[in-house]
Amino acid sequence: VPDTKIMKAKMLAYLDAFNARDAEAIANLYAANATLEDPVGSELKHGREAIAAFYRYAIQTGATLKLAAPVRGSHGNSAAMAFDVAAGGGTMTIRVIDGMTFNEGGEITSMRAYWGLDDIEPVK
Amino acid sequence: VPDTKIMKAKMLAYLDAFNARDAEAIANLYAANATLEDPVGSELKHGREAIAAFYRYAIQTGATLKLAAPVRGSHGNSAAMAFDVAAGGGTMTIRVIDGMTFNEGGEITSMRAYWGLDDIEPVK
Repeated sequence: VPDTKIMKAKMLAYLDAFNARDAEAIANLYAANATLEDPVGSELKHGREAIAAFYRYAIQTGATLKLAAPVRGSHGNSAAMAFDVAAGGGTMTIRVIDGMTFNEGGEITSMRAYWGLDDIEPVK
Repeated sequence: VPDTKIMKAKMLAYLDAFNARDAEAIANLYAANATLEDPVGSELKHGREAIAAFYRYAIQTGATLKLAAPVRGSHGNSAAMAFDVAAGGGTMTIRVIDGMTFNEGGEITSMRAYWGLDDIEPVK
């Protein structure tokens, strides 16, 4: 089981890499054979190349991510964090929770992003 | 797929029922054959009776729950929420994220609680 401190550090590194517009750095946090489901209910993406492509797209939208509450660990190989996405040039907020699993080496083996259409709201 | 508004309402009802010390009301939010994993990495509990017993125990510790950020839905049958548990007679806070799945009838079919030892901190 990976150390919960390592899992949390990786999740914070994920937010930082996204906000630094570095899709390759994010993809490198993932295991080579990892899966990504964003949002939960959408088609699964497999492997680091498909994952990097997903983040290149997400980053070029101009979105930025901000933690909404401290990252949570677990007694297993999983951790989760609630964050807010500033999207649409800052005109809207998307509220998301990511649940991730990790391998012994501290690489992300799966990511699932909980958000739906009614988690998007205009910035007042 | 259950409506995301129904999933969110159920999660808020879950917090309210816990704070009202009503384990049966919480258990009745679950499907009869639901599973519960709290914390993630611990042994799975199966069925509404085992689930009710879990909440009777949790409630008698005197803990109370408070949402830390708005509940997130998904495009599938899942939703998640970050909340803080006031425990130990208010001497400590446990930071948790619950991920839940729901059936068409809006019943909880599974719950997984992300928290670990380093998510427990003394209240200053």
